[in-house]
Amino acid sequence: MTVATRPSIPPARYRERLDRAVRATADAGFDALLVGVGPDLRYLTGYEALPLERLTMLVIAPGDDPIRLVVPRLEEPAARAGCRTDVPIVTWEETDDPHALVASIVHDRAGAGALRLGVSDRLWAFHLLQLQRTLPGAGFESATRALRTLRITKDADEVALLRLAAQAADRVVAQIAAGPLVGRTEADVAREVRERLIAEGHEEAHFAIVGSGPNSASPHHEASERVIRAGEPIVLDIGGTLGGYGSDITRTLWVTGGDDAKGPDEEFRHLFGVLHTAQEKATQAIRPGVACEAVDATARGVIDAEGYGEAFFHRTGHGIGLEGHEDPYLVDGNREPLAEGMAFSIEPGIYLTGRYGARIEDIVVCGRDGPIVLNEATRELYVVDG
Amino acid sequence: MTVATRPSIPPARYRERLDRAVRATADAGFDALLVGVGPDLRYLTGYEALPLERLTMLVIAPGDDPIRLVVPRLEEPAARAGCRTDVPIVTWEETDDPHALVASIVHDRAGAGALRLGVSDRLWAFHLLQLQRTLPGAGFESATRALRTLRITKDADEVALLRLAAQAADRVVAQIAAGPLVGRTEADVAREVRERLIAEGHEEAHFAIVGSGPNSASPHHEASERVIRAGEPIVLDIGGTLGGYGSDITRTLWVTGGDDAKGPDEEFRHLFGVLHTAQEKATQAIRPGVACEAVDATARGVIDAEGYGEAFFHRTGHGIGLEGHEDPYLVDGNREPLAEGMAFSIEPGIYLTGRYGARIEDIVVCGRDGPIVLNEATRELYVVDG
Repeated sequence: MTVATRPSIPPARYRERLDRAVRATADAGFDALLVGVGPDLRYLTGYEALPLERLTMLVIAPGDDPIRLVVPRLEEPAARAGCRTDVPIVTWEETDDPHALVASIVHDRAGAGALRLGVSDRLWAFHLLQLQRTLPGAGFESATRALRTLRITKDADEVALLRLAAQAADRVVAQIAAGPLVGRTEADVAREVRERLIAEGHEEAHFAIVGSGPNSASPHHEASERVIRAGEPIVLDIGGTLGGYGSDITRTLWVTGGDDAKGPDEEFRHLFGVLHTAQEKATQAIRPGVACEAVDATARGVIDAEGYGEAFFHRTGHGIGLEGHEDPYLVDGNREPLAEGMAFSIEPGIYLTGRYGARIEDIVVCGRDGPIVLNEATRELYVVDG
Repeated sequence: MTVATRPSIPPARYRERLDRAVRATADAGFDALLVGVGPDLRYLTGYEALPLERLTMLVIAPGDDPIRLVVPRLEEPAARAGCRTDVPIVTWEETDDPHALVASIVHDRAGAGALRLGVSDRLWAFHLLQLQRTLPGAGFESATRALRTLRITKDADEVALLRLAAQAADRVVAQIAAGPLVGRTEADVAREVRERLIAEGHEEAHFAIVGSGPNSASPHHEASERVIRAGEPIVLDIGGTLGGYGSDITRTLWVTGGDDAKGPDEEFRHLFGVLHTAQEKATQAIRPGVACEAVDATARGVIDAEGYGEAFFHRTGHGIGLEGHEDPYLVDGNREPLAEGMAFSIEPGIYLTGRYGARIEDIVVCGRDGPIVLNEATRELYVVDG
């Protein structure tokens, strides 16, 4: 039997990331970084703990012996197995106060002055409020100030995982477009999408937007019991994680039910053509040094010029990696220049509320000389018998 | 075709919950309650938004016109479709500051004095830090002070959903115990568990702990590539959500591989007998007025008396509902008295680190006259050929 080996992040990489995080903590002026369960913890250690009420927290404080992982005692073996590099673990018992334990580790390392502490973005408010009560003199800020420079550019192993995820999602789009679709509910198609994402190698299927008819004009439509009919579009926006890294693809379909008279009307064809050009031009604009907002402006310019500006009411894209949405955001006002290795969606849309809409989305990596598009599924309108 | 109708929460219930939340906010002394995406939002409105970086927030401020739901414009149709009762919606555009919008709504209703604000436990630290910066004079506390009295007791519709979830999980335990197990990896069995939970009606399969051999002594073991062998125990702790409500069951198996000589050894039989008695006595202790810590003490007393006290190093149980873990917690130090309608796990365990362990877990509702046990799968040791 041949076992396909999936690329993964080498264990040594986690040690490098932790070392860089210690330096980034100091560079950001933080006395310590407090990283709860979530993508930052996974990025730094490989450990995927469940986000629950029991506190798990990586404490990073520049200086000697800078790292401790605080875990509930009953999860100590799971944490040891989950960390991909050696991390000193401190456990707490069920009746201990874990926030006081974190505070004591911070005080041991950084003293008791007016501390500046970074906390991971996804830490629960419940935990942050407890930490603020336990460390009343400290100022708390988003740890992303320190960690974003690490996570915002992807290395070759991360890009390989993003590509595998993208290609798996491409296959699911083709499978769904092959039908049948007409006569089924959106929710039923969404179920099929989730099953197929798993079958194609995703470990989680996070979302399956199936917006048919007027629902195609609702960008984050929740798949409903509406029955898909011949002669209408479907916006299909699907994704999950593969090896921890996200997929996220949108394609627009038009189902005819096999009746040529029920093909896309003239306005939809026009609208889709405008959208296609906007998505293509925004993609072509990708290269190091270009501002995030300039990519947004490129897509928006094409759509504005055709009179659809009001119908494109969301940003052009978002970064993607261990999180489905992360830095950088391709949005007006974000002047950050793109850099080699940044990965993000490019996904303009045009939505005529109450009538119909369309969106095209790819995951793109900023390469040294231009865009590296990870999705390979055709970007044309999928006119299908359905 | 007969369509089985699943019980669900009637729309009118959400209006009642919102009305109660307004009163509970005032009773708790809060000027406003800020409820982000998560179980509190779903409990109050029925809306299940994805937890993302774009802010969705229900603002509840006692007084005239107390409720607003702040949502990103692109999710307005999804929010309208998702709310099970009429909630006034305020939208923000991609380049707006949603935290400032929330602050203005709070100020409009509660003035600009020294505000006391409750925030939902699962709000991301990222959002809480932004709100703290935008409302610098305000004090922030956990909204659970106000909301726990609503959520901690379940009504008949909620109990019906918890029972359906429990019975679906019961069926999956029986299916897994039927084997085969020997020769498979824990991860492969965990995959089967997740598929079966979905096939039995769960919409999400949140966890599938399959701890074999020495891994059975790790309470929150992450299913690994370890191959299950004849002559060892497996702790199977599985669950997800059905109609939004959690299942969570643990049973302990012993796989013989069909070889009678590979049955459970004497110590394991003894240990399991002690555990079985502890779980049964703790369950029998359930009735209104009994303190949460007394239930923990009942289980612990049985296990301590047999010399296994050090090997039972977690609390006896946790509440369950829209969250897998929620109030009340059955733990030493929690003097809260049980009340009719509270729902929780009862799950003592005995773990001999490096060797093996066992756990038995049911979901139990506190009834007027005693325990209502929702799981029906046998609690005996499952000695299976495997």
